[in-house]
Amino acid sequence: MKATAIAPSNIAFIKYWGRKDEELRLPENGSIAMNLSNLQTITTVEFIPELKNDEMAIDGKKETGVGLKRVIRHLNRIRSLTKIKSMAKAVSENNFPRATGLSSSASGFAALTLAASKAAGLDLNEKELSILARQGSGSACRSIPSGFVEWLDGNTNSTSCAISIFPEDYWQILDVVVIVSYEKKEILTSEGQKLAKSSIFFPLRQRLIKNKIKECKRLIKNKDFRRFGELIEAEALELHAVMLTSEPSLIYWLPFTIKLINQVKSWRKEGIEVYFTLNTGQNLHLIVEEKDKDIIVKKLKKFKEIIKVIVNKPSIGARLTNKHLF
Amino acid sequence: MKATAIAPSNIAFIKYWGRKDEELRLPENGSIAMNLSNLQTITTVEFIPELKNDEMAIDGKKETGVGLKRVIRHLNRIRSLTKIKSMAKAVSENNFPRATGLSSSASGFAALTLAASKAAGLDLNEKELSILARQGSGSACRSIPSGFVEWLDGNTNSTSCAISIFPEDYWQILDVVVIVSYEKKEILTSEGQKLAKSSIFFPLRQRLIKNKIKECKRLIKNKDFRRFGELIEAEALELHAVMLTSEPSLIYWLPFTIKLINQVKSWRKEGIEVYFTLNTGQNLHLIVEEKDKDIIVKKLKKFKEIIKVIVNKPSIGARLTNKHLF
Repeated sequence: MKATAIAPSNIAFIKYWGRKDEELRLPENGSIAMNLSNLQTITTVEFIPELKNDEMAIDGKKETGVGLKRVIRHLNRIRSLTKIKSMAKAVSENNFPRATGLSSSASGFAALTLAASKAAGLDLNEKELSILARQGSGSACRSIPSGFVEWLDGNTNSTSCAISIFPEDYWQILDVVVIVSYEKKEILTSEGQKLAKSSIFFPLRQRLIKNKIKECKRLIKNKDFRRFGELIEAEALELHAVMLTSEPSLIYWLPFTIKLINQVKSWRKEGIEVYFTLNTGQNLHLIVEEKDKDIIVKKLKKFKEIIKVIVNKPSIGARLTNKHLF
Repeated sequence: MKATAIAPSNIAFIKYWGRKDEELRLPENGSIAMNLSNLQTITTVEFIPELKNDEMAIDGKKETGVGLKRVIRHLNRIRSLTKIKSMAKAVSENNFPRATGLSSSASGFAALTLAASKAAGLDLNEKELSILARQGSGSACRSIPSGFVEWLDGNTNSTSCAISIFPEDYWQILDVVVIVSYEKKEILTSEGQKLAKSSIFFPLRQRLIKNKIKECKRLIKNKDFRRFGELIEAEALELHAVMLTSEPSLIYWLPFTIKLINQVKSWRKEGIEVYFTLNTGQNLHLIVEEKDKDIIVKKLKKFKEIIKVIVNKPSIGARLTNKHLF
């Protein structure tokens, strides 16, 4: 009745923004992402008959309120697939800060899904796990399969899941995560998602995104780094253009975000092939090839505003481990 | 053969971005702006028979290259309306820095148009001056008439000009200009304009902008400050969303731009009615009512990043003066 899972966070190259079903977390569009080797959540779950209520601790702190309710709903989904009536104890640890745009809810709900389903005696396949994880946190479905993944834009609960499109060793590109703030976001991604449709630009984005996904997959397949970089950078800016034009406007950037974006552009003029992408957090993701990693990390170390730099390779997806947290 | 004119810069509430005719500087859409009492250019022009070439000095520095060519083309337009063959000497002074997003080309070409046409013996009416000024620099046509102005979206040279929609004393709102950098822009507005159509969002913006202009005029007429503020802020963000999604992407913001935008939002939460707008420069324009001016200026003074704050009332348009610069 106890199991532990490790799951990676992931960085989306083509973004998930807007839902066609809030309850099931069905996205308005498909997305493409890469799982990250050094942003991980490890979670142990045990169903304990004597327990009165579900309990969850994350990074040593007990979850309460809305956060706990979201976990309980997820455990209920898993219990409903079994005969288990027991409450669960869950303990989770991230090796990176939460709610700062590093997708801790992706790795968190992926790890919780795998650990809880295993602890409940289930032996779900990748698709089943991905579907379940999605209902906890949309982008968590992408943290189940390995390497480069596509979240298929399904119209039903049983068709909206992520699959691996290329394994983790297919292309050695790196995501250099630049942490500029540990401050929690004012508007959580989950709330921001609801505003997607309030942007006048959202419908047009939707109309063009299927082709963009196709193009992104083609560029990964061909390992065409320059055009891939240009595509994902334009995609990130398009996402933020949609956010800027939401009502109310969503501005997730920090002053340093602008500084670093401009810096990336000028590094490219110097001949270094580096591109950025960013989500609903202040932190940036710089995408580079292995050959340019050292020079970029060295350049980043000169900025006093940067708290931490985390270099990620493409990673395998969620997996079980024997190292329980309790 | 000598005349001197003063012209105000202006701040657009509904923006001019994209041209349907590069040569005539016919805009893709109409715009709404307010002339500014404390951002001014004064220009003296004299046609001098002995002069070999047109000469122009701005803020004590001789114009050369592309800048001078643009002035010569404008003087040629004026000469072509007369029998004058002489070259001109022009001297111009701004009371604010150029090419930092404060529309020095608007006040500059408005003052040049009035001074040069008068020096050439012409006695043009407001419409004729506005049409001429537009050909020098699009937004300069708005600096000719007084107060709150509309640049009419004409399809021909003779129909695209600005008119006053409300006089300068109609509504006492202020534009508090926050100067955060005297650095020249990397991409001049005039060049950026050419990229407008490369944004996938541009056509939709165009489709909706006529109604936005109508709504903006209605809100000024009704002096509905809150809704006016919300409208112009959303409009500025929409403009920047279009720029972000251009190819290549245009990012005119500085780190402090983001800081101040977020600050404005939080001042509103404190109950101060202040809204922002911004053009293709790093500097911000905060729009407030007279009653909130002092508190905003006081709050702004606490930021070490701010070089200067200039408070502007609605201003009269371009006018002649006897105080020649030479």
